[in-house]
Amino acid sequence: MGDDPTRFERGMALFRQLHPTATTQLEDLLADVAPDLLRLVGEFPFADIYPRQGLDLRSRQIATLASLATRGDGEGQLAIHIGIALEIGLSRQEIVELFVQLAPYAGFPTAINGVRIAKGVFAQGQAGRPAPP
Amino acid sequence: MGDDPTRFERGMALFRQLHPTATTQLEDLLADVAPDLLRLVGEFPFADIYPRQGLDLRSRQIATLASLATRGDGEGQLAIHIGIALEIGLSRQEIVELFVQLAPYAGFPTAINGVRIAKGVFAQGQAGRPAPP
Amino acid sequence: MGDDPTRFERGMALFRQLHPTATTQLEDLLADVAPDLLRLVGEFPFADIYPRQGLDLRSRQIATLASLATRGDGEGQLAIHIGIALEIGLSRQEIVELFVQLAPYAGFPTAINGVRIAKGVFAQGQAGRPAPP
Amino acid sequence: MGDDPTRFERGMALFRQLHPTATTQLEDLLADVAPDLLRLVGEFPFADIYPRQGLDLRSRQIATLASLATRGDGEGQLAIHIGIALEIGLSRQEIVELFVQLAPYAGFPTAINGVRIAKGVFAQGQAGRPAPP
Amino acid sequence: MGDDPTRFERGMALFRQLHPTATTQLEDLLADVAPDLLRLVGEFPFADIYPRQGLDLRSRQIATLASLATRGDGEGQLAIHIGIALEIGLSRQEIVELFVQLAPYAGFPTAINGVRIAKGVFAQGQAGRPAPP
Amino acid sequence: MGDDPTRFERGMALFRQLHPTATTQLEDLLADVAPDLLRLVGEFPFADIYPRQGLDLRSRQIATLASLATRGDGEGQLAIHIGIALEIGLSRQEIVELFVQLAPYAGFPTAINGVRIAKGVFAQGQAGRPAPP
Repeated sequence: MGDDPTRFERGMALFRQLHPTATTQLEDLLADVAPDLLRLVGEFPFADIYPRQGLDLRSRQIATLASLATRGDGEGQLAIHIGIALEIGLSRQEIVELFVQLAPYAGFPTAINGVRIAKGVFAQGQAGRPAPP
Repeated sequence: MGDDPTRFERGMALFRQLHPTATTQLEDLLADVAPDLLRLVGEFPFADIYPRQGLDLRSRQIATLASLATRGDGEGQLAIHIGIALEIGLSRQEIVELFVQLAPYAGFPTAINGVRIAKGVFAQGQAGRPAPP
Repeated sequence: MGDDPTRFERGMALFRQLHPTATTQLEDLLADVAPDLLRLVGEFPFADIYPRQGLDLRSRQIATLASLATRGDGEGQLAIHIGIALEIGLSRQEIVELFVQLAPYAGFPTAINGVRIAKGVFAQGQAGRPAPP
Repeated sequence: MGDDPTRFERGMALFRQLHPTATTQLEDLLADVAPDLLRLVGEFPFADIYPRQGLDLRSRQIATLASLATRGDGEGQLAIHIGIALEIGLSRQEIVELFVQLAPYAGFPTAINGVRIAKGVFAQGQAGRPAPP
Repeated sequence: MGDDPTRFERGMALFRQLHPTATTQLEDLLADVAPDLLRLVGEFPFADIYPRQGLDLRSRQIATLASLATRGDGEGQLAIHIGIALEIGLSRQEIVELFVQLAPYAGFPTAINGVRIAKGVFAQGQAGRPAPP
Repeated sequence: MGDDPTRFERGMALFRQLHPTATTQLEDLLADVAPDLLRLVGEFPFADIYPRQGLDLRSRQIATLASLATRGDGEGQLAIHIGIALEIGLSRQEIVELFVQLAPYAGFPTAINGVRIAKGVFAQGQAGRPAPP
């Protein structure tokens, strides 16, 4: 790991573009105790996976939200990826509707938890794209 | 349940349109031992949920595939929903790529199992849309 | 969804009878952001499933508690269903014993979390049945 | 483990009474490679847990079935416990209905898998109680 | 359960040696509402399982941490077992590295949650071994 | 992905050293339908993670086995990693004992399934280390 220094930099740049607040929070969480895990987050999901061809970014984010909601154990991470979904253009209604779609497949607890966490993200406003100059 | 007879019929018609083989197989499985569960499958996911506004069908199917793959316990059901995904227009590459996207979030076992099951569906060919007359 | 207006009303009436506080809280959570999910909660679990013949209410509630505890990701929902279990006549000892029964099948974390959440519900007293006039 | 030799014997006697075929199969599976795990199965679930006061056997078995079905990873074990449920007096309809009850809480895949496995157990007939002399 | 009074005492003594604070907290949680579950915790994991031959204590604790982290639903219990891991001699770096190892198999949410919880345990210092007299 | 060609080669060489049969089988599974997922398996778990400092290989493999067994949905992958555990020097008894250790934390189904799969791997013999010249 790390014989390609630019891989980490490219991944963190994408993560920061998609969710600057979450990027800073993860840096704060991991910098002292697990700096290599931060490096791996930059290198694997955000440099190796997200920029791949073959599936559009919107579809990737829908799959990520459905997977995290179905796991059910990463409330903070689901909130971050709801923020990313808003940033790349999913509407609030679409995000809510995605959790409704999961009710028959993962059960109502998954749907209700997803909506509850989304409501919290919506209430904070959204980091959002900086206004163009 | 059942004071709206057309709800079941509408749901089963959609299920049969999306995957006629799976519809017949589920009818065969449930008809004698749990006919009401067949009714609920027709009424809830396929009549109440899938036709809802607010999220396009392609996105609903991506969420369903990601949720079933992350659960990890419904190989037959994941195969059926891969077939539905092909029917509504996702390409084989997109379906494979969806499972690759899950590797960082649900782990490599989820991604590899998803691809293995998809490969089995691809090998059977696809029910597919009937050729236009 | 919704071509049978009385289905929702019947479901919500049952939910309110079983746990009035939780009903109001779920209405408050979902009313603005996901009103259709509230509708589906009323229509599917509480109108389509709970009133079904073939299994007594006590057995349905035991199955629900065991399933939610085994999922492990819905602390609030498990608390609500512990409240419903008390309302329909399970004793505190039976509810605790149900979680003890899960120790060999879902592990001690499931049993301990179940008892911890039950203890919190017991401490709040129980909404309980209104005294007969 | 094992400073109480009768604990194992009591547990295995109960297991054998509830499901003689499964007892023999587990003995065959574990005897050479993990005899202590067989001992622990006899001692913990069947001697320490099942005979406890505070919850009737029928309710314990419903909780066990709901937990195993929700886990989703123990098809053989769920089949065994469906056999035990029949042995202690649950009807086929009640067992099917229990899995229907899980649809809103653990999702349709759990309900359909549960019914599919139950159907297989029903088809084999049931070990059942020996006819009284 | 309980026809061997020394089994519980041996288990609780080991639990108290490995993590005195957690032992007291579990006693406080369970003493009034589920005293038998406390008894079973003493008897089964800490008297029947942990002292077994065939696998060293360090390896047992690594397996326990990996299992609890993968379940994802027992933050408090994972924290306790991180404390036990420190007590029996795993270094902070090894514990962090264990969660990094899980990233490909259980996903980044498991790795990040594990490190977050470990960081909290590290911040409290460690109960640790009492200084020798 | 892939601007470092030697990362993949290093990972696949390690995978092949640890389990040559499984490496060939995964190549056969993925080569036509998901060649990039094969690449990612080589690059991420086997090049980025396994060779890391900070935790010995034996401990990494114990954590992997415990995580895969607890997930419960990757029988083939658990079998592969049991084979790797044997290759790096864990004894059959230690592997069985690892699954026994999980009984209190992930439940008996996890322990029994783990032993059942291990028994299958033991029965095939083990690829094992080539005899020294």
